Amino acid sequence: MKLRFAGTGDSAQVPCFGCDCLACQRARLLSCHRREPCCGEIELDGELILIDAGRMDLAARCERQRPAAILLTHYHADHVQGLLHLRWGRGESIPVYGPKDPQGCADLHRNPGILDFQPGLKPFRTLQLGRLEVTPLPLNHSKPTLGYAIEDGVNRLAWLCDTVGLPGATERFLSEWRPHGVVVDATHPDSYHSPNPESDDSPHPESHTTPRNHNNVAMALEIIERIQPSRAWLTHISHELDADFMATSRILPEGVELASDNLQILF
Amino acid sequence: MKLRFAGTGDSAQVPCFGCDCLACQRARLLSCHRREPCCGEIELDGELILIDAGRMDLAARCERQRPAAILLTHYHADHVQGLLHLRWGRGESIPVYGPKDPQGCADLHRNPGILDFQPGLKPFRTLQLGRLEVTPLPLNHSKPTLGYAIEDGVNRLAWLCDTVGLPGATERFLSEWRPHGVVVDATHPDSYHSPNPESDDSPHPESHTTPRNHNNVAMALEIIERIQPSRAWLTHISHELDADFMATSRILPEGVELASDNLQILF
Ligand SMILES: [Mn+2]
Ligand SMILES: [Mn+2]
Ligand SMILES: [Mn+2]
Ligand SMILES: [Mn+2]
Ligand SMILES: [Zn+2]
Ligand SMILES: [Zn+2]
Repeated sequence: MKLRFAGTGDSAQVPCFGCDCLACQRARLLSCHRREPCCGEIELDGELILIDAGRMDLAARCERQRPAAILLTHYHADHVQGLLHLRWGRGESIPVYGPKDPQGCADLHRNPGILDFQPGLKPFRTLQLGRLEVTPLPLNHSKPTLGYAIEDGVNRLAWLCDTVGLPGATERFLSEWRPHGVVVDATHPDSYHSPNPESDDSPHPESHTTPRNHNNVAMALEIIERIQPSRAWLTHISHELDADFMATSRILPEGVELASDNLQILF
Repeated sequence: MKLRFAGTGDSAQVPCFGCDCLACQRARLLSCHRREPCCGEIELDGELILIDAGRMDLAARCERQRPAAILLTHYHADHVQGLLHLRWGRGESIPVYGPKDPQGCADLHRNPGILDFQPGLKPFRTLQLGRLEVTPLPLNHSKPTLGYAIEDGVNRLAWLCDTVGLPGATERFLSEWRPHGVVVDATHPDSYHSPNPESDDSPHPESHTTPRNHNNVAMALEIIERIQPSRAWLTHISHELDADFMATSRILPEGVELASDNLQILF
């Protein structure tokens, strides 16, 4: 299978509107450093499967090649906002798989148009998409969220985003399943701390908080260390993390890299 | 004031994803025939005011010039979806005015980021934005929706979208206010009839239905006829209407034209 990183940014994208940090300045100058909302494309046997749908040019992408299916990790806007437009298209319906989330996003479920929303996926219940076997994996996030274990009969890829850490059952599944490649949420630099309005008066308001909805780099690397894939990519990257890498020239462990938009991997 | 039609399409846009009608084919070949989601830009004294925010490249537009305010007509996705990304930007907050609609769209109201959502506007209660006087006008649509009567001290512009017909009070206001220019919803060709699932078995299932949420051209022209502006523009145009105009070479009354993306008017 072929994996393409169609977007590797967080909900603010890179450049972040109105931000003048070094990472945002660089992305305005050099488009190769831009990061669209986190999403992926899997190709096998000439068929296209999309993972998430937060890119604003989703309809244009789908006109070049109509996807056989869309896998959603969750219904936060940065992962589904492209569907708000795509749904009003014409032609055969497009099956959309994702977690059970009655709320969905905006009126997508009430007005699906050409999108054929399938019943919410059951964790660990494998789905067959063409020759791909896709197993939904529960993640830790602020909305019902699924990662995906994707296998083409030879190679195994785990897509783990958005998440902070991993639920025990997902980690046990992955330790046994032994993916060749892992794509994992690494939104924040390690220096990031969650805003905590209750401790505003404290002299060190952020000193005891850790990220609540997304991994920082250290947490992402711990996950990779425990699963031991041959290769791993950090994604859902914030402009703060890009700026941190620019400032510190941090070196990642062997086999681990920051994903970038348009990066393609042939498994 | 200067008015720019930043988008003149309906929620499907033109080209509509997956559609091969003549209008969609033409828009793929000639970008001047594309239609983005319906929205406008008003410039006065070097300040930019946006009407609606459904364009997917809203953040890029706002980086070129940061708007002083955003006026929303309503919270359907095709009028607000650009805010889902813009909100996560940096810098001074952007005031956003619109109708009272507790639901809003997706989690915009719960997670506004840099958007400063103002209390819901009261119909006919004039708002001062710089030198502009802006009066909200109730419209007929499937969500709470406001048109805007906009005056710069010399010229008067009415923005009436999305709507089917006009509420009596709005029509009385406009007849007295006498705008120079009117921009009005004309989504459908006159041949369009609302889907009516209850009459699926009838041999002429659509014969007695009229549009429910948007004007067709005849209804838009009636509104213009009653208000008598010097100039009027039809907007929120569907690919079906474009195709209808291509097929029939219909001629519009003097002073009335189909708006097109990027059209600029100096009042
Ligand atoms: Mn999320
Ligand atoms: Mn996200
Ligand atoms: Mn609407
Ligand atoms: Mn609309
Ligand atoms: Zn930045
Ligand atoms: Zn069409």
